Amino acid sequence: MGFRLTPQDTSFFSLFATTAGLLVDATRELTRFLEVEPSGRQAVADRLRDLEHSADDATHELINKVNSSFITPFDREDIHDLAARLDDCMDLIEEAADLIVLYRIGELPKGLADQFEILARMAEVTAEAMPKLRSLKDLSNYWIEINRLENQADSLHRTMMADLFNNATDALHVIKVKSIIDGFENAADSFEKVAHTVEGIAVKES
Amino acid sequence: MGFRLTPQDTSFFSLFATTAGLLVDATRELTRFLEVEPSGRQAVADRLRDLEHSADDATHELINKVNSSFITPFDREDIHDLAARLDDCMDLIEEAADLIVLYRIGELPKGLADQFEILARMAEVTAEAMPKLRSLKDLSNYWIEINRLENQADSLHRTMMADLFNNATDALHVIKVKSIIDGFENAADSFEKVAHTVEGIAVKES
Amino acid sequence: MGFRLTPQDTSFFSLFATTAGLLVDATRELTRFLEVEPSGRQAVADRLRDLEHSADDATHELINKVNSSFITPFDREDIHDLAARLDDCMDLIEEAADLIVLYRIGELPKGLADQFEILARMAEVTAEAMPKLRSLKDLSNYWIEINRLENQADSLHRTMMADLFNNATDALHVIKVKSIIDGFENAADSFEKVAHTVEGIAVKES
Repeated sequence: MGFRLTPQDTSFFSLFATTAGLLVDATRELTRFLEVEPSGRQAVADRLRDLEHSADDATHELINKVNSSFITPFDREDIHDLAARLDDCMDLIEEAADLIVLYRIGELPKGLADQFEILARMAEVTAEAMPKLRSLKDLSNYWIEINRLENQADSLHRTMMADLFNNATDALHVIKVKSIIDGFENAADSFEKVAHTVEGIAVKES
Repeated sequence: MGFRLTPQDTSFFSLFATTAGLLVDATRELTRFLEVEPSGRQAVADRLRDLEHSADDATHELINKVNSSFITPFDREDIHDLAARLDDCMDLIEEAADLIVLYRIGELPKGLADQFEILARMAEVTAEAMPKLRSLKDLSNYWIEINRLENQADSLHRTMMADLFNNATDALHVIKVKSIIDGFENAADSFEKVAHTVEGIAVKES
Repeated sequence: MGFRLTPQDTSFFSLFATTAGLLVDATRELTRFLEVEPSGRQAVADRLRDLEHSADDATHELINKVNSSFITPFDREDIHDLAARLDDCMDLIEEAADLIVLYRIGELPKGLADQFEILARMAEVTAEAMPKLRSLKDLSNYWIEINRLENQADSLHRTMMADLFNNATDALHVIKVKSIIDGFENAADSFEKVAHTVEGIAVKES
């Protein structure tokens, strides 16, 4: 296993850790929506846009590194896939957050705080798993926890949708809020896809 | 080919057959929505939830089996992918079915019976294909039939959407019914993705 | 590299070029929607349906070719994947275009011309990249340009959605227009997935 500790290899793992760390930052930034006045939401969305750009940079660095490295810690196409999947998480978080500003929805839907909390936990669990890519061991707790969180997100999403319709009067408002709630649910799904990709790599390399 | 008949290998195929069999059960259960009063729909959704849990168990058993087997009938990551794809079918069926209850939509949309019939046929065709994974032969009828059914589902979906809008008065009702119809169309797409995954395995191993 | 110039190999690349060429035709056909009266839209949708069928035929020919060839220019499953991804682009373009007719939306949304222009450029760039699959070199401009176009499409999509809601009075009209705008945005995403698949192949074979 020692040969995996060469400088090149280390930086693959550290680039994955960087991206996952940016996801932790992004999900923490989300909770700012709950604290600020509607007039302060644009600044939160802007900060998420910056984090998305940083994640893009880290992803491109990873892809370039794969292309220029003779030795990679696992199959090139799997590194490429995992990088893209992590990038998807950030894109979906930023996109859903932007809708909050774009649709000028006023009062935030009940339950959004819970969606944010689940996403924050998913990001943390994902970031904690990245260093374990080195050995591809001890990852089963990560999958179990992501799976549990995704089930929780799914159940919350259904409750939020039912609430939205059962208290609805304005159809346009419903369409807007539904887009936002669905957007964050897609983000939760994307963390599960990251876990699935890691599981696929572990299965293949085992 | 005889070496594939060892006990371990057999149970990979039988686990795939189990999951596909649960999909057949689930699509049959769907038709119960057409027979019961609105008050009886929760019981149907509950039964689908149970089937989804059983499918989850079968999927986890498959993943564990891949991780603990020295010899697998085809590449580990492909077994993993196929298991996940089959699981997606069940998740999407259960999710769309739950919306029927959650959104309290009253009268079911015209065309739902046809969506259910196509999904039932897709599940049957998929279940019939699973034992053929052993030899990866004679699968072209499966792909052709799934493709034909998906085209049929797609065409039905478009007709249902046009009907929905052309007879619409209540926008909130339209949003609810659209979510349900779209959900079952996603389920039909997911059966096509299973077929695509099987096709990819056959292409690779041929 | 000369051995890749055998007749069989050539036709894999020419089949990819054929499908990409059909995407160029399809995106050009889209602009016809902007020129015809509403009564002429069905004819445009019909022509797109024909192009979709031609793309299906090319895809099936590719899959059959993979299955019957001893030697393939790169891994069989990757040829299969790329063919499916290109087919997705056509399916999504045809589907979104069909909604224009199906939903009888009258006046086309502002910004649609720009969506069409971006899709046309994506199709052209993709078609230009297909011959480079032979050497898997000089593809970075293709990825950069597709990425740039997808960001542009994404930004346009958000502006269109904000405009739609901020000028909205009729919720049913909003749902219809949103479906169409979202459909073309999904098509733009699908071109990025093609680029991602090509990138994955290049990474793997490098």
